[in-house]
Amino acid sequence: MTSRITSSMFSSEDMLNVFSDGATVQRMLDVEAALARADAQHGVIPASAVQAIVGCCDAALIDMPSLMKAARLAGNRAIPLVRQLTELVAARDAEAAKYVHWGATSQDIIDTGLVLQLREALRLIDADLGKLAGALADLAGQHRHTPMAGRTWMQHALPITFGLKIAGWLDALLRHGERLDELRRRILALQFGGAAGTLASLGDKGAAVAEELARDLALALPDTPWHAHGDRFTEAACTMGMLTGTLGKMARDISLLMQTEVAEVFEPIAAGRGGSSTMPHKRNPVGCATVLTAATRVPALVSTMLSAMVQEHERALGGWQAEWDTLPEIMRLASGALEQMHAVISGLTIDTARMQRNLDATHGLLMAEAVTLALGGRLGRMQAHQMVEHACDQAGSTGTHLGDVLKKDATIRAELSEADIDRLLDPAGYTGEAESFIERVLHAHRAREAGKQ
Amino acid sequence: MTSRITSSMFSSEDMLNVFSDGATVQRMLDVEAALARADAQHGVIPASAVQAIVGCCDAALIDMPSLMKAARLAGNRAIPLVRQLTELVAARDAEAAKYVHWGATSQDIIDTGLVLQLREALRLIDADLGKLAGALADLAGQHRHTPMAGRTWMQHALPITFGLKIAGWLDALLRHGERLDELRRRILALQFGGAAGTLASLGDKGAAVAEELARDLALALPDTPWHAHGDRFTEAACTMGMLTGTLGKMARDISLLMQTEVAEVFEPIAAGRGGSSTMPHKRNPVGCATVLTAATRVPALVSTMLSAMVQEHERALGGWQAEWDTLPEIMRLASGALEQMHAVISGLTIDTARMQRNLDATHGLLMAEAVTLALGGRLGRMQAHQMVEHACDQAGSTGTHLGDVLKKDATIRAELSEADIDRLLDPAGYTGEAESFIERVLHAHRAREAGKQ
Amino acid sequence: MTSRITSSMFSSEDMLNVFSDGATVQRMLDVEAALARADAQHGVIPASAVQAIVGCCDAALIDMPSLMKAARLAGNRAIPLVRQLTELVAARDAEAAKYVHWGATSQDIIDTGLVLQLREALRLIDADLGKLAGALADLAGQHRHTPMAGRTWMQHALPITFGLKIAGWLDALLRHGERLDELRRRILALQFGGAAGTLASLGDKGAAVAEELARDLALALPDTPWHAHGDRFTEAACTMGMLTGTLGKMARDISLLMQTEVAEVFEPIAAGRGGSSTMPHKRNPVGCATVLTAATRVPALVSTMLSAMVQEHERALGGWQAEWDTLPEIMRLASGALEQMHAVISGLTIDTARMQRNLDATHGLLMAEAVTLALGGRLGRMQAHQMVEHACDQAGSTGTHLGDVLKKDATIRAELSEADIDRLLDPAGYTGEAESFIERVLHAHRAREAGKQ
Amino acid sequence: MTSRITSSMFSSEDMLNVFSDGATVQRMLDVEAALARADAQHGVIPASAVQAIVGCCDAALIDMPSLMKAARLAGNRAIPLVRQLTELVAARDAEAAKYVHWGATSQDIIDTGLVLQLREALRLIDADLGKLAGALADLAGQHRHTPMAGRTWMQHALPITFGLKIAGWLDALLRHGERLDELRRRILALQFGGAAGTLASLGDKGAAVAEELARDLALALPDTPWHAHGDRFTEAACTMGMLTGTLGKMARDISLLMQTEVAEVFEPIAAGRGGSSTMPHKRNPVGCATVLTAATRVPALVSTMLSAMVQEHERALGGWQAEWDTLPEIMRLASGALEQMHAVISGLTIDTARMQRNLDATHGLLMAEAVTLALGGRLGRMQAHQMVEHACDQAGSTGTHLGDVLKKDATIRAELSEADIDRLLDPAGYTGEAESFIERVLHAHRAREAGKQ
Repeated sequence: MTSRITSSMFSSEDMLNVFSDGATVQRMLDVEAALARADAQHGVIPASAVQAIVGCCDAALIDMPSLMKAARLAGNRAIPLVRQLTELVAARDAEAAKYVHWGATSQDIIDTGLVLQLREALRLIDADLGKLAGALADLAGQHRHTPMAGRTWMQHALPITFGLKIAGWLDALLRHGERLDELRRRILALQFGGAAGTLASLGDKGAAVAEELARDLALALPDTPWHAHGDRFTEAACTMGMLTGTLGKMARDISLLMQTEVAEVFEPIAAGRGGSSTMPHKRNPVGCATVLTAATRVPALVSTMLSAMVQEHERALGGWQAEWDTLPEIMRLASGALEQMHAVISGLTIDTARMQRNLDATHGLLMAEAVTLALGGRLGRMQAHQMVEHACDQAGSTGTHLGDVLKKDATIRAELSEADIDRLLDPAGYTGEAESFIERVLHAHRAREAGKQ
Repeated sequence: MTSRITSSMFSSEDMLNVFSDGATVQRMLDVEAALARADAQHGVIPASAVQAIVGCCDAALIDMPSLMKAARLAGNRAIPLVRQLTELVAARDAEAAKYVHWGATSQDIIDTGLVLQLREALRLIDADLGKLAGALADLAGQHRHTPMAGRTWMQHALPITFGLKIAGWLDALLRHGERLDELRRRILALQFGGAAGTLASLGDKGAAVAEELARDLALALPDTPWHAHGDRFTEAACTMGMLTGTLGKMARDISLLMQTEVAEVFEPIAAGRGGSSTMPHKRNPVGCATVLTAATRVPALVSTMLSAMVQEHERALGGWQAEWDTLPEIMRLASGALEQMHAVISGLTIDTARMQRNLDATHGLLMAEAVTLALGGRLGRMQAHQMVEHACDQAGSTGTHLGDVLKKDATIRAELSEADIDRLLDPAGYTGEAESFIERVLHAHRAREAGKQ
Repeated sequence: MTSRITSSMFSSEDMLNVFSDGATVQRMLDVEAALARADAQHGVIPASAVQAIVGCCDAALIDMPSLMKAARLAGNRAIPLVRQLTELVAARDAEAAKYVHWGATSQDIIDTGLVLQLREALRLIDADLGKLAGALADLAGQHRHTPMAGRTWMQHALPITFGLKIAGWLDALLRHGERLDELRRRILALQFGGAAGTLASLGDKGAAVAEELARDLALALPDTPWHAHGDRFTEAACTMGMLTGTLGKMARDISLLMQTEVAEVFEPIAAGRGGSSTMPHKRNPVGCATVLTAATRVPALVSTMLSAMVQEHERALGGWQAEWDTLPEIMRLASGALEQMHAVISGLTIDTARMQRNLDATHGLLMAEAVTLALGGRLGRMQAHQMVEHACDQAGSTGTHLGDVLKKDATIRAELSEADIDRLLDPAGYTGEAESFIERVLHAHRAREAGKQ
Repeated sequence: MTSRITSSMFSSEDMLNVFSDGATVQRMLDVEAALARADAQHGVIPASAVQAIVGCCDAALIDMPSLMKAARLAGNRAIPLVRQLTELVAARDAEAAKYVHWGATSQDIIDTGLVLQLREALRLIDADLGKLAGALADLAGQHRHTPMAGRTWMQHALPITFGLKIAGWLDALLRHGERLDELRRRILALQFGGAAGTLASLGDKGAAVAEELARDLALALPDTPWHAHGDRFTEAACTMGMLTGTLGKMARDISLLMQTEVAEVFEPIAAGRGGSSTMPHKRNPVGCATVLTAATRVPALVSTMLSAMVQEHERALGGWQAEWDTLPEIMRLASGALEQMHAVISGLTIDTARMQRNLDATHGLLMAEAVTLALGGRLGRMQAHQMVEHACDQAGSTGTHLGDVLKKDATIRAELSEADIDRLLDPAGYTGEAESFIERVLHAHRAREAGKQ
């Protein structure tokens, strides 16, 4: 048994279900059932065989422990599954049992079964992405005028608004939405080629059966079987990798803002959530931790998918098999990260007063650029930079407010009045295009939502 | 100095040039020049300053060793570059020097400069991809009827045609072409936000300057600055990773076919190419080795880009900087792999007689499926499978041709005549839909080429 | 539920058991039990509390589904486990329940529990490594004089012996054995620091309790708690990564030798093993495929462990949690690869006649170096190289044996007699130090085995 | 040209020199020179040839651009180097030129050359590691009594001392020192096997020449050539990966402590270091950024080395070549990280007053565990936990000091006096074994230093 206590912590429940043992087998049996129908429709197998075969394509009928054991010897799970299925059908209709799995080979069942699982998985991801984007859009709108410190290199840089930070997150998620749309066009495709990709075992009915099979499963019919080409599955991995990266960036930002000394935002509180076994006062960023765990693990799993693309000839040795656990794990981790981030965002506690207080923490140093630029227009950028750098050093070393230092400097006062200096040092007056950027992102979000309907 | 002897072996010359020191600095200076024009156009800086600034935006004027040294201390290469540029401008026009880099910050210059490099890089990749696809289309057409062994698990499985193998490669490349088209829409975008992404330093002219800057550089204007969101650059990495994976698969296939005992295809011969320092008879797959080197290295580099997406706040500590060498290295490796694969394919020596001889190597075992299916239609799949498996064992252990074993088996002969058996054992008669698959892929290729014009 | 059908295919049964849910919880409870004993021994908790606590430290008493659910909310599995344990103890002895988990924190239990699992895991690995090394030593000894083609760049290069190839594998495994010995000294160490690594919660008894706890669990006592330093766990990952790399190299070699056209060695046959669902003649390298799957997946998992080392302060956000599934998966994959490789090696079918036949396949070209060197001693290396290169080209293009070409070349015949040429072209006479290398490796193997006793 | 502006930012100067083009070629020529001496010593080549060959083994004589160009065609840099060397020797002594590179093959020169570079690289690493450990030992000693907040999940947890944090870093570095010692025993080994690893080209002198070559180069003589086994080089990569991980952890800690709101430690100030192009007040953690860049990039590079271990037969296609740029890049990044971390640590500005102030920031919540444990001894751990959790909630929501809340709680006051509560809430009194842990680590450090002399 694999370590399920731990791994189940990092996935959504729904995604655990999509890739459960039962679901994996059921999706393979769905392909077998559709194959029987397609074979019969084109006279490859007798119509009379369909009912018995389709009736047995039920994961509940499969002896799972025996399947697992046989899979290890056989090298894949399709061979023993077909064997069990054939026996089940034979018990109902010995004649029908002759036509199980007709014209297909292991990879057709495994790969197309995985495509069916991915269809469900991507639906979940898309729905959760939509929910998260909606929550972010609400928050960005609410905080379009909330000033906070912009931080570069993990140091205060210049004021921004909290809405702008959120709009940046949302903008990235909108791009992931686009990528998901594009991905679906390539990944939701039938894999059906028989043992070596020619469908030779179906005589002159190969193309017709393939077309019907794709129609039955509501998948695209590709120009040629693609089993030994990992790019379709790998694109799903890459897209999830990028999505998880963005979620990781959000979790990093939020967990930094939750630090004891910063304390600007907090994950929602819930019973049993985020407590410590020994420190009752802790409010741990449990949701962010799950997201960051995914963001730490998924990149390497994506590289496995990319490495595994170097597949030998018509079926690979190692490259194909490496996909089997890797892609589901990526989907589980991405789904868990999305779900947790939605929980975090939709219940986020925001302390705007603290944001303001933190803005003032450096006694005006945060506004140095505004002063530099105002002076730069008169004295040149380099000289202004040096003068303000000097004033900042003085303010920093003496604990004086930057405004006071500036006001005492004769050269500066020749260019700027006290009122000019006060105005230049007000964070709220120095957020530039933040609001217009937010509006543009919100507009793009509404356009995308409208396009979905 | 970094180890250029080695690394230059794995890139195309053109891509080395796109990411050379000189080009990197020049693209950053291109952004500075366009910024000066845009600033002046909207009255942010005096029009009189433009000529001096633009005139100095020439990498040939930059002291590179001093730039490198200062970059290490400063933590990025934009800071010392702006310093040198300002000094250069000051020497021509002291007043103009005040307006260098006005309103921008390091990441605007570095990120947008990298976008400009990527535009050139993707042009090279796209052109090379087109050439390789063309060469493959020609080859697939020529070999649509050339039978060869289909190989699964690195064992003979069933006959395919060489054209089908090539069509599979081409089909994957067509998908990469689609992905490149989609990628360009997101990556060829301006990054311009000033120190914290608000453009506050431009007062009320931020939006206008940004729009003009995008227009001047012929880049898309994004809804909001995206500096701390690595998904755009990472998508370029992922797309190159998938492309390199497909090229690696091709190189693996070709190098397997070049093995001494297989000897079906060979890389082209050229002076100084693929020889051994001690074994004069060797004809090493040097092109494939370069491609496989890229396919071994790029997946991990992609994971670096994904890991680096977890960036702190408005500018990251480590995540941003990790992109700088990684993405160029990915582009270099991908370009080198593409170039080498084109050289391999366009000069490939193909021994169709050897392909035929190898098909016969297993004394008919390769055709077992054809017999199994023919019998399966009469006796049921499982029983037919067992009977043919038994016949194969006999043929294998006694060194007899499968046809002879089958012809001596009374149960089988009750179902199949000698002529039936001979027909079933002919590889050329068992390539299924190979030809129609090839035609579909060639059609898609022609459609794509037509769409480009 | 995670996808166990698939993942269980790639692990040994024993390793699945070491990292099962039940075992994971049991090892954590083992630490809790030892902690109660150590606490009591130093008077931190009453001696009377020990029996009830220790008696409840039994995974069979734990409600696993409820544990899994609570773990997700809590952010780790120790918090809900301690809660359940406390309730179990309270039901027996309310007073004792006050002293459960005394002085420890979640990471002490999780990390030390994982160390205990690794102790068992490394024992299994070590035993399997010993068995594999033994099988290889036998085989290397048996084939010390069996000539085969040495292959570089996947082309015939020069003759080697099969024993030499095996000795190379064995030599690498011996180095892994050394690394395992060194690793154990660092990884089999107690992690015990309390909430922030000071053991403050134990007052002045911290050092004494830690010492006793280490003694009880038979682990080394480290100089300081190491929870936020991932290097110990990561070293286990790296060592397994290197081991898996060597096993992957062996599997690559063997699968290449098993190719239909090469056919020099074969994996053992077993019922249900390596068959194809549609091609009865196939004998797939199923064992090698499992090993190559591990070799494709483990490198990326190791990089996750390395990435996860960047842990924040006294307990990390993401970095720690990323270890939980990753390290067990590495152990499972490494153990499965080892087990499968042992099965492959200990039942390997070897066709020495085919090895000899393949040696002759290039009509003497393989022996070109021998001739080059013989001539080089008289004519200089470069000239000899060119002459033999020319002769090889002639032999290759005309299908003539290299010996015949050489014997007709007057310049060469001025230096070498016909007998000289025949002797130089005999593979068995050109295996250099192969035998002495084999002997040295076998000697090192025997020394290591002797040292273990 | 590769992008040297950027990559040179992340390496130490010394390591750039070890892996420069010139040094790479020189180390290969060092092997050629030693080979000529060893060949001559055992009569394989005439003694008269040695002087001319050795005299030409000077990288300054090599035409590098031509070498780079030829390397791309040849597939490695040894072939064209041997060609140039032979021409150089021929110009001096035509007879001697016949004996250049006698008995060796490309990989002997490339791999052993790389081993020689690694010897220098590991010397640098070891020296820098020693310096960093020394600086940490000093700092740990100075701050053995400096209380600071221990932080878990990026939240205040319990008090620790700054010395304890440093001792944790130092303890990890000491383990890396051990690993380096163990690594050197395996990596500083000759690779010498000729074209297929048999040394057949040396007739019966192979063993003797190999022994002399190892002696001449002061490398260990391995039991068998190891060219196709990547574990030796990969172990160097893994060891550097772990070291870089620890340095990354240190940089993460320090950069978190440098945040504007935390402000407990600061990187040293230097001219041109860590400034911003537009914000004169910034004091960016430039050193930490370099270290974190390395920690982001190296894990993936290590996985490349591990992936590349799956090498075919006696010389690989892709796996070998993938090492060439990867291992040097790892060494460069590790060295740069070490150097920067030493600069950071040796000039670290520490604000102990601020540490104390931050400890008080949560109004006593940080000390909740101390109270919980004191109460737990009387009321049981679970009940005490709940009571203190409740008090913390009250303190947090009302902004009251935890002490005041506790003192007003009758149940608690039944167990603890006001003085008890005050004592329990003093951080300095709750650092447990911190000091003894520090002493043990310092002792281990001194022992290691003593052992080196």
